[in-house]
Amino acid sequence: MMERVEHAEPAHTRTGVASAPTTASRTVSGPSSALERWLAGHMLAAMGDPAITLALWDGHEVNRGGGTPRGRIRVLDRTALWGLLRNPEVEFGEAYSRGTIVVEGDLPAFLECVYRTWYRPAESAADRLLRRLYRPNHPPRNTLARSRHNIHHHYDLGNDFYRLWLDEQMIYTCAYFPTREMGLEQAQVAKLDHVCRKLRLQPGDRVVEAGCGWGALALHMARHYGARVRAFNISTEQLAHARERARAEGLADRVEFIEDDYRNIGGECDAFVSVGMLEHVGTENYAEFGRVIDRILTAEGRGLIHTIGRDRPGLMNGWIERRIFPGAHPPSLKEMLDLFEPWGLSVLDVENLRLHYALTLKHWLERFEQVADQVEKRFDANFVRAWRLYLAGSMAAFNAGNLQLFQVTFARTGGNAIPWTRSHLYE
Amino acid sequence: MMERVEHAEPAHTRTGVASAPTTASRTVSGPSSALERWLAGHMLAAMGDPAITLALWDGHEVNRGGGTPRGRIRVLDRTALWGLLRNPEVEFGEAYSRGTIVVEGDLPAFLECVYRTWYRPAESAADRLLRRLYRPNHPPRNTLARSRHNIHHHYDLGNDFYRLWLDEQMIYTCAYFPTREMGLEQAQVAKLDHVCRKLRLQPGDRVVEAGCGWGALALHMARHYGARVRAFNISTEQLAHARERARAEGLADRVEFIEDDYRNIGGECDAFVSVGMLEHVGTENYAEFGRVIDRILTAEGRGLIHTIGRDRPGLMNGWIERRIFPGAHPPSLKEMLDLFEPWGLSVLDVENLRLHYALTLKHWLERFEQVADQVEKRFDANFVRAWRLYLAGSMAAFNAGNLQLFQVTFARTGGNAIPWTRSHLYE
Repeated sequence: MMERVEHAEPAHTRTGVASAPTTASRTVSGPSSALERWLAGHMLAAMGDPAITLALWDGHEVNRGGGTPRGRIRVLDRTALWGLLRNPEVEFGEAYSRGTIVVEGDLPAFLECVYRTWYRPAESAADRLLRRLYRPNHPPRNTLARSRHNIHHHYDLGNDFYRLWLDEQMIYTCAYFPTREMGLEQAQVAKLDHVCRKLRLQPGDRVVEAGCGWGALALHMARHYGARVRAFNISTEQLAHARERARAEGLADRVEFIEDDYRNIGGECDAFVSVGMLEHVGTENYAEFGRVIDRILTAEGRGLIHTIGRDRPGLMNGWIERRIFPGAHPPSLKEMLDLFEPWGLSVLDVENLRLHYALTLKHWLERFEQVADQVEKRFDANFVRAWRLYLAGSMAAFNAGNLQLFQVTFARTGGNAIPWTRSHLYE
Repeated sequence: MMERVEHAEPAHTRTGVASAPTTASRTVSGPSSALERWLAGHMLAAMGDPAITLALWDGHEVNRGGGTPRGRIRVLDRTALWGLLRNPEVEFGEAYSRGTIVVEGDLPAFLECVYRTWYRPAESAADRLLRRLYRPNHPPRNTLARSRHNIHHHYDLGNDFYRLWLDEQMIYTCAYFPTREMGLEQAQVAKLDHVCRKLRLQPGDRVVEAGCGWGALALHMARHYGARVRAFNISTEQLAHARERARAEGLADRVEFIEDDYRNIGGECDAFVSVGMLEHVGTENYAEFGRVIDRILTAEGRGLIHTIGRDRPGLMNGWIERRIFPGAHPPSLKEMLDLFEPWGLSVLDVENLRLHYALTLKHWLERFEQVADQVEKRFDANFVRAWRLYLAGSMAAFNAGNLQLFQVTFARTGGNAIPWTRSHLYE
């Protein structure tokens, strides 16, 4: 299945999600066998016995977790079950997108329940072996060419698509909610200010932004803090939008949007910032990324890296990596430090905003559901289900602690123009 | 020289500082040779050409740094010079303590100037080789027995000694100065509160403190936050003082001071805290330390580790390690993460308080100078010089960025009873 899709992908499946049910899934699968039922139970055991019910196409139910089930997963045909047995992480997403697996109940709560048992630390050698068998995701290295391909894959789905459900500035990274009740629009602006305060931006500061999305942060820094910004991105569609905004808002003389890879950034800057790009860099490139920062940052320069991360090194969810974010890898803090320690950069502050990303995703998912009909018209039902799963699954992962959100503020080792305390962030 | 002192140390040199000038240093060294002058210049080059003047016993001066010298070092005899040439990091401290090297000018400023050139990142292979030759400090592993020996060496110098120049609560770790103008006594209390707020202590919380010094934090948590504390230490003198304070202040029913190694901590706790102990643990024991935390921390438990650290892995200053803090190693953040990542612990917050330690040390050094006569009577002039160098050198190292001060707050991965933002720390 996977090979066929990858080798001959229909033109309209730009996300790479399989566009139609397979032949098998349209046929009646007949009664489940004793072997299939036994294997289904075994699979739930390998996932740590989450408190869920698994119902097969013939009505047979498997429930091993004990207690009240937090959700019910219906496997509608034999192909979906055997996919799950072979590679649950990837094939769950594939079948859910095709519609041959259905989740009854609250999708994020269901997924959080599964993540909390499945991704807990391995306690035995057998446990570790099972996981290696079941999570065989090995993303390729992010060369310059592959980075372009990967970024195009996700971020060039069309500005119109993202505009449907993101905030009005189209900020596609974790927001910062000073209070949980704050709306998404406000919380995204609060995030921009939180970042600018951490960078202690002053009028005239030369800023380099690596991975600028649709340009909201770069424009905010120029408009509200008087910064002069060079913002880099390799997503053509995002840059077109960002440049148009800069022109329309009269900021084109202070913000330059540059279509280039972070590896090619030159010149000099007083502040370096990267929000939501490190996930796409790959640990094998951290030393080079650090070298770029070291090359361009002034002696009293400041920097901030904002990234999805993990509490321990691990691979991205296989389905997300394959279908949504090819080449993505959320680093552990220890992995991240390869950016700083070899280059005489000094970590001043790390803030973990995990629950803020869960809340951001809750907003996105609600907005997405409101426009699901429009998205289905533009793409198809499989696309809608895939994105529903991606948003709900990410929300669940942040709530369960499988993913973290790190903001790391740094300066050069021994530079003493650093803030005395962090109280200025909360005034 | 070193071997003789180590093998037959006089009873009154409890810090291990050589107690008297060597025979050689009492004799006249005669004129310096061309070779000695050439080697002295070569040594300054290997140290990165700091802007200092080196004056030999015969009046010959070496100055390679250019610009106005930030200080002048006088080498009073041949023994001191050859010691410096062999191992500048260790032998500078030895000769300074003996009085055969004298620094003219502001000692912390002089040392900061040297540290900024000497400890900057190695730029060439030759540079790295020179440093390896010049910094051959290889501290032994911290077994249970060696830990006891090491801690006794430093912390059992006598409560009366530390009482002379620490704050009234005898807090021997970095203070927290909400403003630079705050006095030391207040800043130490502010530190205790900063730590308690980060731990979000509630009345009735069971706290374990690993390495409790003279007990100030444990008593503060019980008195002001209603916590029940088990505080561990292997320094007999410190514990005697802490227990006496608990009795005198009516807190003995809520604070238990236990003479035992952190490796033996059992039971359960809602909050785990360790302030200024990790420096003595040694990276080879971090996995075990993490295992202890994992064993005793409840599901919704919180923790904080406060430690001297570095921006990149490196050995402790050789002289400090030999004479002041045997077995000490300030970790880089990356090294520290071995405490957390293997154990499903989630880093919520890292704060770097480097400049607060420089200011704390400035206070300590000023107070120490005020009582230097009393210290000399109790020990001797070599002891006073050694401690002056240790305090000034540490202040310089924090100012120059050779040392950092990390406070790392953590919880269990996926535990959601964590603070929404950090604003409660600044209210």
